[in-house]
Amino acid sequence: MYCFGVDIGGTSIKMGLFNLEGDLIEKWDIPTNLDSEGQHILSEIADEIKDRMSKHNLGHDEIVGIGVGVPGPVQSNGVVLKCVNIGWGIVNIKEELEALTGLTVVPGNDANVAALGELFKGGGSGCHSMVMVTLGTGVGGGIIIDGKIVSGANGSGGEIGHFPMVGDEEETCGCGNKGCLEQYASATGIVRLAKQMLMKGEGCDEAHVKACDEAHAKACDEAHTKASSSLLSNEPLTAEAVINAAKSGDVIGQSVVERVGWMLGKAMATLACAINPEVFVIGGGVSKAGDLLIDPIKRNFDAMAFHGTKHTQFAVATLGNDAGIYGGAKLVLDAWKDGV
Amino acid sequence: MYCFGVDIGGTSIKMGLFNLEGDLIEKWDIPTNLDSEGQHILSEIADEIKDRMSKHNLGHDEIVGIGVGVPGPVQSNGVVLKCVNIGWGIVNIKEELEALTGLTVVPGNDANVAALGELFKGGGSGCHSMVMVTLGTGVGGGIIIDGKIVSGANGSGGEIGHFPMVGDEEETCGCGNKGCLEQYASATGIVRLAKQMLMKGEGCDEAHVKACDEAHAKACDEAHTKASSSLLSNEPLTAEAVINAAKSGDVIGQSVVERVGWMLGKAMATLACAINPEVFVIGGGVSKAGDLLIDPIKRNFDAMAFHGTKHTQFAVATLGNDAGIYGGAKLVLDAWKDGV
Repeated sequence: MYCFGVDIGGTSIKMGLFNLEGDLIEKWDIPTNLDSEGQHILSEIADEIKDRMSKHNLGHDEIVGIGVGVPGPVQSNGVVLKCVNIGWGIVNIKEELEALTGLTVVPGNDANVAALGELFKGGGSGCHSMVMVTLGTGVGGGIIIDGKIVSGANGSGGEIGHFPMVGDEEETCGCGNKGCLEQYASATGIVRLAKQMLMKGEGCDEAHVKACDEAHAKACDEAHTKASSSLLSNEPLTAEAVINAAKSGDVIGQSVVERVGWMLGKAMATLACAINPEVFVIGGGVSKAGDLLIDPIKRNFDAMAFHGTKHTQFAVATLGNDAGIYGGAKLVLDAWKDGV
Repeated sequence: MYCFGVDIGGTSIKMGLFNLEGDLIEKWDIPTNLDSEGQHILSEIADEIKDRMSKHNLGHDEIVGIGVGVPGPVQSNGVVLKCVNIGWGIVNIKEELEALTGLTVVPGNDANVAALGELFKGGGSGCHSMVMVTLGTGVGGGIIIDGKIVSGANGSGGEIGHFPMVGDEEETCGCGNKGCLEQYASATGIVRLAKQMLMKGEGCDEAHVKACDEAHAKACDEAHTKASSSLLSNEPLTAEAVINAAKSGDVIGQSVVERVGWMLGKAMATLACAINPEVFVIGGGVSKAGDLLIDPIKRNFDAMAFHGTKHTQFAVATLGNDAGIYGGAKLVLDAWKDGV
């Protein structure tokens, strides 16, 4: 018996064929067809699935089903409310893809499904509860409790990138609010923070320093009394350049990393009080900064965490872009085992 | 068929006999025997249960079991790690109370069990996911997802009173950290905030006002340019007096309520991003302030909540001190239905 894991992204659709143990037999991808508001996407996925089944001589009775991650909120009945990146409005992905393939389809939000993948075969392997924090262009998240995704009443479970962090932020987040975690701890946020500090010359203003904790205030003071930053000559500025500058001891780079570590440490300490997971798994492009970023996250987490949660494990994501297909496989395997 | 719900508190032990629908047949309580580090508690509960069974002519085969809320963290194997209030160290409450009664015992943390009670027959009735916020001497919490308590890996699930809220707090919370939600939004916290504002004379300092959002800063400014507070002559100061003063238009009272509303609104907006519950149920003695407090909580929640969670319902707890016994009943009924 086998199953398929599918991860629908704005650029490409990743697919994998797995056995019941979750071993990846084969993976491949196709470009996402954004024509006509993405209306060809499901039929193209169905064609790919049928091709692989015939290539491997697999009958319908040998396939448990298809688990699919989609870039938008998914209701418990399998209806997708809106996927801006691929042009979808309301789509009953479960019903439509089942009709096209004759196979059971279980959909989930892509960030949540990727978290499930990391729990299954990645950084959270062996655990039952986990929070995945994905630091990419934005900040994504996925919460797993007792091996199950926390989707939330309106599909907004795990939206930790929109934790309200700063009361006096002046710029607006993509979501419309001000002061969201994503405005600081994403690749975009890192560039934004570095630009702000560079533009101010002397760095953070007094109100900001006062609003932060003592350790952070100290780091800022120290940073901005030193010589000007190597990042001043860096154009266009990228998160990677800021992180590399921090690695070389640049004062602005280090100050940004310290602030991001404080934000994430605080957000994770809050999550730990709420759901007390076994492990935090950190992934996404920004997480490639490694210990330079993980150390300040852990230090700040430790300072703010409730005593019963101080020993929460930290791990890095190991599946990279394959997390979504592993999670898709796990999603449909669990549904099958539950007899759905 | 029937079951018992038991709620072990530091002063009294509440008990209830329920039918399978969760209707309360009879309730009663006994004082908590704190002698010899609480070692008589379980045998006294067992005696009470046996008495009621014989009074109602109930055999062991007619009783599903006993659900028990205890004031400490409970591991998934039914072992209680520490209950400071009743003198317990490590107690295998499941094993011990089962041996004493011959009935199935399912224990849980008291705040979590009370939340389950409110979901079962109280303010969260009809919902499957809920966050209960109990504003009493401290701030307690309970998170329910898909009808099940989120206990957490170390029994610290739902400890929302220890959300890290303020980075520059100077006083220490009972948990050892500084700046926890409980230091502001509990009865103790309300008195503390009022005293601080009264002692400062002109109210909040500049750093504090800057650190808060615009609406709050405005409220503070307004408050502290007005005449001095009626609370100055109130000794000893109680949370009730602060709330009553706010109701009569007292500037300090209103300023405290506004700050508490901001804290809780922010904490709930954060929780909504994480788990996106159907409903927030607010209980505890402080919640008797009613709309005076609920309105600023909702206003601040609405300003900070992620768009997908803005329509989360707010409800008040309706079971009062009986929430624990209802939750105990639900806990053991669910375990029985799951065939445990």
